[in-house]
Amino acid sequence: MHLDGLLRGVHLFAALPPDHAPVWAAWPRAGGAPVRCAIGWRAGRITWLGPERDLPAGLSAEREWTHAGHWLTPGLIDCHTHLVYAGNRAAEWSQRLEGASYEEIARSGGGILSTVRATRAASVDELVAQSAPRLAALCADGVTTVEIKSGYGLSLPAEAAQLRAARRLGEQQRVTVRTTFLGAHALPPEYAGRSDAYIDHLIADLMPALQAEGLVDAVDAFCETIGFSAAQVARLFSAARAAGLPVKLHAEQLSNQQGAALVARHGGLSADHLEWLDEAGIAAMQGAGTVAVMLPAAFYVLRETRLPPITALRAAGVPMAVATDCNPGTAPMASLRLAMNMACTLFRLTPHEALLGVTRHAAAALGLVDRGQLALGLCADLALWSINHPAELAYQMGQPQLHARFFEGQPDA
Amino acid sequence: MHLDGLLRGVHLFAALPPDHAPVWAAWPRAGGAPVRCAIGWRAGRITWLGPERDLPAGLSAEREWTHAGHWLTPGLIDCHTHLVYAGNRAAEWSQRLEGASYEEIARSGGGILSTVRATRAASVDELVAQSAPRLAALCADGVTTVEIKSGYGLSLPAEAAQLRAARRLGEQQRVTVRTTFLGAHALPPEYAGRSDAYIDHLIADLMPALQAEGLVDAVDAFCETIGFSAAQVARLFSAARAAGLPVKLHAEQLSNQQGAALVARHGGLSADHLEWLDEAGIAAMQGAGTVAVMLPAAFYVLRETRLPPITALRAAGVPMAVATDCNPGTAPMASLRLAMNMACTLFRLTPHEALLGVTRHAAAALGLVDRGQLALGLCADLALWSINHPAELAYQMGQPQLHARFFEGQPDA
Ligand SMILES: [Zn+2]
Ligand SMILES: [Zn+2]
Repeated sequence: MHLDGLLRGVHLFAALPPDHAPVWAAWPRAGGAPVRCAIGWRAGRITWLGPERDLPAGLSAEREWTHAGHWLTPGLIDCHTHLVYAGNRAAEWSQRLEGASYEEIARSGGGILSTVRATRAASVDELVAQSAPRLAALCADGVTTVEIKSGYGLSLPAEAAQLRAARRLGEQQRVTVRTTFLGAHALPPEYAGRSDAYIDHLIADLMPALQAEGLVDAVDAFCETIGFSAAQVARLFSAARAAGLPVKLHAEQLSNQQGAALVARHGGLSADHLEWLDEAGIAAMQGAGTVAVMLPAAFYVLRETRLPPITALRAAGVPMAVATDCNPGTAPMASLRLAMNMACTLFRLTPHEALLGVTRHAAAALGLVDRGQLALGLCADLALWSINHPAELAYQMGQPQLHARFFEGQPDA
Repeated sequence: MHLDGLLRGVHLFAALPPDHAPVWAAWPRAGGAPVRCAIGWRAGRITWLGPERDLPAGLSAEREWTHAGHWLTPGLIDCHTHLVYAGNRAAEWSQRLEGASYEEIARSGGGILSTVRATRAASVDELVAQSAPRLAALCADGVTTVEIKSGYGLSLPAEAAQLRAARRLGEQQRVTVRTTFLGAHALPPEYAGRSDAYIDHLIADLMPALQAEGLVDAVDAFCETIGFSAAQVARLFSAARAAGLPVKLHAEQLSNQQGAALVARHGGLSADHLEWLDEAGIAAMQGAGTVAVMLPAAFYVLRETRLPPITALRAAGVPMAVATDCNPGTAPMASLRLAMNMACTLFRLTPHEALLGVTRHAAAALGLVDRGQLALGLCADLALWSINHPAELAYQMGQPQLHARFFEGQPDA
């Protein structure tokens, strides 16, 4: 067997099948003591993995590394971000903490529409330049796949610019970018009072044009009293599905709009936020295989008190992903491991669930079947960590612990 | 005038006197628009600062840098950490999230005494090796001065090893380390039921020996129902003060023990945590000039709900510092900027207060008068940031934004 790359001496995480619960021990389990394993790949796909002592005799590899005692996980996947935008909202945040009312902030031009204004005014080059450090920070923390949403343009040229910037970032940095069209994020000022007409415009004009340019991997919406109604989202989703696009939804974040059931009805990849999710929503997600995406940063920033129904989701076997939600208003955060910590600390996920939430289940939330696990045939996107136990990935805050990262089988320089 | 170093084009933070509230604008203020400033130093001390256009004609500098549009702050100061320890408590944290009771965890050897066991078993070299990445992470985020406490040894040799490791870290990395003797952190198992005898032992044996070795810059204690009583702490503090050592205290974290008034009575540098601080404690701190050190990470990790009395502290003019509390049990965190974010998000400090809390007031909490501000004669410990507004330092989470760092006038490589 000939390999492009071979990594020796490492402990492998999550190479066991999904129904095999206790995967903290190395693969294969040996009385709990991690075994020295090896993993090899060719043409960017994993072609061998197992205990080092079982490596076949005739095996050769172009490049070989030994990292004795380090843990290896799949490259992390951030399945929900809004990381392409211009400007930031630090000044508005500061004002609010200094005692300004929401009304004063709105009068001085704050809120999501301030990000829309800044993003509309920026060129693709400017969007790339401002967003690149956020993406670089995610990658430095072990991320190899990231989803990026539009939704701060809210017009054809501005949404196109955001999504082109996202694609360009994926070409410039060593990371897979998946784009999501979130035209139904907020109502642009020029459509004030005409939200149905705006949805018509998205369906008739933006979505087809952006899809034709190859800028849309999925379609998302914000279903909320301050966003769009379930009926409006249903129209958008029907059009998306008819066009062959998968859907996902910002659902039950601030109130229960039956959004989870709605997106499940459309075979949705994921329902995201879910603080107000009810039993009917859980059952619908379970039936449709829709992933529950936990976004604890927004919960933290907004000082929410109502938790998503983690216990019920767990009992129903609904897969739970964890993402940063990276955005300038409710989650100015560029660390997926910090999101893991918040998922454990605030939402009471276990560290094991948090790690599955940024690997296997995050892949599922993006509809990707070729990554998120260490298994034969899957993508050789790998993160190697300076830790003694995988639980440390969620436990430590603000401590870089990435030892090496491989993207499509190639190590970072 | 001859300088060792000169930095041009930057915006200076906090060069105004303490009573000059709105210091967001550059120094000097010019209608809110930041002015291009310069700052120069010689022999590690700031010797010139002001608008670039006012630079004297005959000025020369060995080295000169221009960083147009970047913000400059004093190097950050983390004034409360327990960062020297062995092992970590990720497994115990994981167990608890998986549903284990405190009793089960105690039976399997968890809790602070597990860190004591691991720290006692480690050599100074091992303590340095395990703690170095935590210190490096702090420095990479702009820290130039850090306080490190003992308190996981609880015996003369083990406390000495912890403090020697702290000193050695300060020699190995480009950062000033201030050591605090926290023998009264927990009762070691060999003194079970004999806490007064343990305090006697600290006073008679540990404190003098460690001080004689130059390992003690200050003395701290944990005054709590699960720690030491106010009477015990008072005895320790009297001995410390008689030996010429300043004191500080873990006070009113889990209950009101009148610890703040106690430490203030001993002219204490700081009272730390303070969730249960009352009006009498605030008045005592105000009278003594004792700094209130906010430790929001422990509040976050423990999911506390009772906030320190920020509004009353602010009204009383008690200076508020912010620190990581970096420790394996309640604050596995190595980012002072994340502590700033938590101080704003959870405790409702303003970003401006948070920045003063990791510069000027953090210096005061350590009794250091030569740093924490950009001012003539002070230490040329400087942090240069890729930000548009100083509020971003607290607003962004997990986003490296340090552009350059100068320690005692020398730039990091
Ligand atoms: Zn979102
Ligand atoms: Zn502490």
